[in-house]
Amino acid sequence: MATQNTQILLASRPEGWVTESNFKIVQTPVGSPKEGELLVKNHYLSLDPYMRGRMNAVKSYTKFQELNEVMTGGTVAEVIESKHPDFQVGDIVVTMLGWQQYAISNGEGLRKVDPKLAPLSYYVGILGMPGATAWIGLNEFMRPKVGETVAVSAASGAVGSVVGQLAKAKGCRVVGIAGGKAKCDYVVKELGFDACVDYKAGNLREDFKAAVPDGVDSYFENVGGDVMDTVLSRLNAFSRIALCGMISEYNDAEPKGIRLLRSLLVNRTTLRGFIVTDHLDKWPAAFAEIGGMLKQGKMKYHETMSEGIDTAPKAFIGMLKGENFGKQLVKLV
Amino acid sequence: MATQNTQILLASRPEGWVTESNFKIVQTPVGSPKEGELLVKNHYLSLDPYMRGRMNAVKSYTKFQELNEVMTGGTVAEVIESKHPDFQVGDIVVTMLGWQQYAISNGEGLRKVDPKLAPLSYYVGILGMPGATAWIGLNEFMRPKVGETVAVSAASGAVGSVVGQLAKAKGCRVVGIAGGKAKCDYVVKELGFDACVDYKAGNLREDFKAAVPDGVDSYFENVGGDVMDTVLSRLNAFSRIALCGMISEYNDAEPKGIRLLRSLLVNRTTLRGFIVTDHLDKWPAAFAEIGGMLKQGKMKYHETMSEGIDTAPKAFIGMLKGENFGKQLVKLV
Repeated sequence: MATQNTQILLASRPEGWVTESNFKIVQTPVGSPKEGELLVKNHYLSLDPYMRGRMNAVKSYTKFQELNEVMTGGTVAEVIESKHPDFQVGDIVVTMLGWQQYAISNGEGLRKVDPKLAPLSYYVGILGMPGATAWIGLNEFMRPKVGETVAVSAASGAVGSVVGQLAKAKGCRVVGIAGGKAKCDYVVKELGFDACVDYKAGNLREDFKAAVPDGVDSYFENVGGDVMDTVLSRLNAFSRIALCGMISEYNDAEPKGIRLLRSLLVNRTTLRGFIVTDHLDKWPAAFAEIGGMLKQGKMKYHETMSEGIDTAPKAFIGMLKGENFGKQLVKLV
Repeated sequence: MATQNTQILLASRPEGWVTESNFKIVQTPVGSPKEGELLVKNHYLSLDPYMRGRMNAVKSYTKFQELNEVMTGGTVAEVIESKHPDFQVGDIVVTMLGWQQYAISNGEGLRKVDPKLAPLSYYVGILGMPGATAWIGLNEFMRPKVGETVAVSAASGAVGSVVGQLAKAKGCRVVGIAGGKAKCDYVVKELGFDACVDYKAGNLREDFKAAVPDGVDSYFENVGGDVMDTVLSRLNAFSRIALCGMISEYNDAEPKGIRLLRSLLVNRTTLRGFIVTDHLDKWPAAFAEIGGMLKQGKMKYHETMSEGIDTAPKAFIGMLKGENFGKQLVKLV
């Protein structure tokens, strides 16, 4: 068994864009679990936009990432040694044990999953936090009705792709926004959205207007910035916005601001900021529906897999820039 | 009886700030009601921020104001001639018959009120649309709990002053934002708010932070702009915002934008845009509570009264600039 554990620490807080120099790769001993603890080997590390927020030392919904500690992050892991009554060697668990190869845990916050139901990596993706986020935003806050128009930003991403496919299954017209022709083609041809607007094509307002001839009844927001203003410009009366992320401004020292907020007033819109971990009671329903659709081939899912823990910083920076395609992961073993 | 009716028409659409040249004062014959109609004499004209929105030829929640037609507006009026079975000469009615001395109506949209219960002008103020707006925003969308902190912008105004007093009666800490020392003194000393921050004093962020040591649990938004960003910077988790108006940007060709919208995400805030006329079913409950507090001396109300219909444009422009104190009206007779 390996005795060295490669970990990635936050070395410094980014000013503006994250760089690889904000991280430090270290080797530490793997160690042994004490009574009531277990040792896991991480198979997959999930890279998610929320991590960018944690890198700043500002008040947020959870404590920010401390310097010189292991970067926070979800993993799919295998129990390789256990002195904990609830876990056996060979169990597969979803953890928040972060950017490292091995970790010792007292079992808190671990979620056992069935490796026979889906590929392991799915449990930090479509059958994990991003999938639950999509389902909860759509069903709890957007509550679309048959025939309504649903808009989704970051439409090819781990969350947006699921939002749109769930909304299509509900009988909505679904319009995505994504960066580049390849992603937009994927969103329409593979995921089955009715349309997808390329925000990089230089004509966002007009292209989006053309794609939503009946306006927007509900919107899943991952991006903020110009994309958000564009959707605000086409809202319908009594529309609903699930505010999940604003990745376009995570690297700005001072965000440019949203100009068309008055649209929320004129259209009597309800905008709801939400964090998926406030709604753990809804996760089982989310996974039941998404899992069922996966099994029936009615839900497509795309992963971008980076190989080896050392590649995590680069893959993370790429994801913040939209260079990934679908869910961004790091394969660790 | 007078045979001439002075009316104020929209002569041109403002570009930026409204000027008196955007209005035209005309004389027309008073006319006579036909079968099924009645003639009213307007006693009080209400001047309200929403009118600025109607002056632009843009999509909104109701049709915009046509050029060369009587400016839209609520009035308290007396029936002076009636060929309508439901109305008698001497009845007092609240109307939307606009900026003019007399008007003929088929009775649609008129609301009879009891002139013995309150001064007539109150029926387009604290016992009219602004009062209902305050009550509905607070009770339907902010839903404050005892001990929570409630923030209110335009705190000395027709709506904000009522929001704050209702919230105080519910046992909340209430913090207003208003323009100038006189208004802030009034808000604290007369209306009984716990604190009021003067946005004109030059230190809005720090002054507001000091006034809300426990953060903001709910917010009634009348203003937008820097005031809104200031409140967003102090939101608590699971806070609620009732978005009623954004008067600070009504005269901007291009609004500056709201920079701290991400606070709604981090704090899982629900922001709800609303228009009071969507909630007519709640008006009786609003007037019952506010009327009861008025009767018991537990609700203060301040009016700024301009005299004569010719003064309406100037008074309206003054209100948009925050020059009025409390509810802005025009006394017509």
